[in-house]
Amino acid sequence: MSDRDRKPPFRRSGGKPFEKGRKPPGRQPWRDSDGGSDGPVILYGWHTVAAALANPERQIRKLFLTENAARRLADENIDTRVPPEIVRPNTIDARLGPDAVHQGLLAEAEPLPSPDIDALAQEGIVLVLDQITDPHNVGAIMRSAAAFAVKAIVTTARHSPEATGVLAKSASGALELVPLVTVQNLARALNELNDRGFMTVGLDSEGSEDLGAVALQQPLALVLGAEGKGLRQLTRETCSVVARLDMPGAIKSLNVSNAAVLALYIGASKLGLMK
Amino acid sequence: MSDRDRKPPFRRSGGKPFEKGRKPPGRQPWRDSDGGSDGPVILYGWHTVAAALANPERQIRKLFLTENAARRLADENIDTRVPPEIVRPNTIDARLGPDAVHQGLLAEAEPLPSPDIDALAQEGIVLVLDQITDPHNVGAIMRSAAAFAVKAIVTTARHSPEATGVLAKSASGALELVPLVTVQNLARALNELNDRGFMTVGLDSEGSEDLGAVALQQPLALVLGAEGKGLRQLTRETCSVVARLDMPGAIKSLNVSNAAVLALYIGASKLGLMK
Repeated sequence: MSDRDRKPPFRRSGGKPFEKGRKPPGRQPWRDSDGGSDGPVILYGWHTVAAALANPERQIRKLFLTENAARRLADENIDTRVPPEIVRPNTIDARLGPDAVHQGLLAEAEPLPSPDIDALAQEGIVLVLDQITDPHNVGAIMRSAAAFAVKAIVTTARHSPEATGVLAKSASGALELVPLVTVQNLARALNELNDRGFMTVGLDSEGSEDLGAVALQQPLALVLGAEGKGLRQLTRETCSVVARLDMPGAIKSLNVSNAAVLALYIGASKLGLMK
Repeated sequence: MSDRDRKPPFRRSGGKPFEKGRKPPGRQPWRDSDGGSDGPVILYGWHTVAAALANPERQIRKLFLTENAARRLADENIDTRVPPEIVRPNTIDARLGPDAVHQGLLAEAEPLPSPDIDALAQEGIVLVLDQITDPHNVGAIMRSAAAFAVKAIVTTARHSPEATGVLAKSASGALELVPLVTVQNLARALNELNDRGFMTVGLDSEGSEDLGAVALQQPLALVLGAEGKGLRQLTRETCSVVARLDMPGAIKSLNVSNAAVLALYIGASKLGLMK
């Protein structure tokens, strides 16, 4: 799916410039500040809920299970941590809509804390997302990030989907594994990464070098823009390198989650991180 | 997005066994025979419609454009081929629903012909999809296939989405570039590929070797199963090799379109097809 397949959930252009005095304290939950929702994080589906139950950092408020799902958790010795409410599948259907494949599990939970940039270890790979709005794409990217042992995902507080619902389902448990660092101003965050010794590599079809030809080094930040829009001008200018992904066919750009997994594979391979 | 995010559009298990006398003649349009729709293929969005207008094989029935989209086509010297009907954006919204990003272009077209397996050249890479039902995933896979110069995509007539609408939009023009071979029985199609000298490599997290360690050869067929279900037993048994994608992180499986692009990159790199 492409980011262009869905209209972004809001259309304000740009963001307010960063104002030092207004920066919220660290460890804000990762959520869209435009949305303003203080509701619980909604987690559904086997992998997503099982991973949340296995994560001691994740506070579970309520747990709704079908009889089958409760039995499956018991069979796999997974502690429900709160007394589950046993419901019929269509009770969960009614909550999530008919298209959600919930497999009989729905949890209401607290958002996870968001670490600060300066808490990131100076090693391995982090991913930076520049206003990628589609929750399916962000979820698939988180899943790939967990598969490639990415240290964190950095994203903007605004123009990013909340870490709940479809995103959590698409992430297939990765929400519990990859820390999400939410920032107000992405260029400032990239400058902080540059200052902390990260090589910041933007991905863009107009990049000056093929990613496979760039001399990559750790710690590495791979920066991805939304499809259609690509990296914003200031994001591009703040990266150490802007690289493209050369491919032999007639189409020269990929779905953003596909571009992300390819960049992760190339980065992890070149840095010797695939073992 | 994961295949598991949406319920499959139908739930019949298995397919009828292949019956020789009932095989339809070649060059059937690629569509879900369960759907039974004889309606036109719906194409929307800039890349998807522009690619269709550029494809002489694609018969356009009707073309709806906003004034802006008509001007953009004229600016880029793209022939509309049929007299367009100029409409307001909300006329197209009303047709597609509020979430479709159509960019002012909607075409009704004929399906493209589907070649037979024995018409495939014995070179390069083909992709084989074993009942991947999510149209966003199949569209993203087609887009990646076009980016990696894949020769064709082989898929089942049943338990596959139609090449229209969301799939076409996610494919971002790739529908016009990568031939779709529709078959009634996938194991038989794999046997035909084996007989024609293709190395058929199934991807499965339980595979016996890492794909990067397999001695790949052309012509190569990479076979992908639906998430959750994976490759069906008979599909797996009919492949020359079943390989896994080794990754260093805690999650060991990817969204299916992400797995597809990674397998394509590894395959094309190892076969010297990246130039």
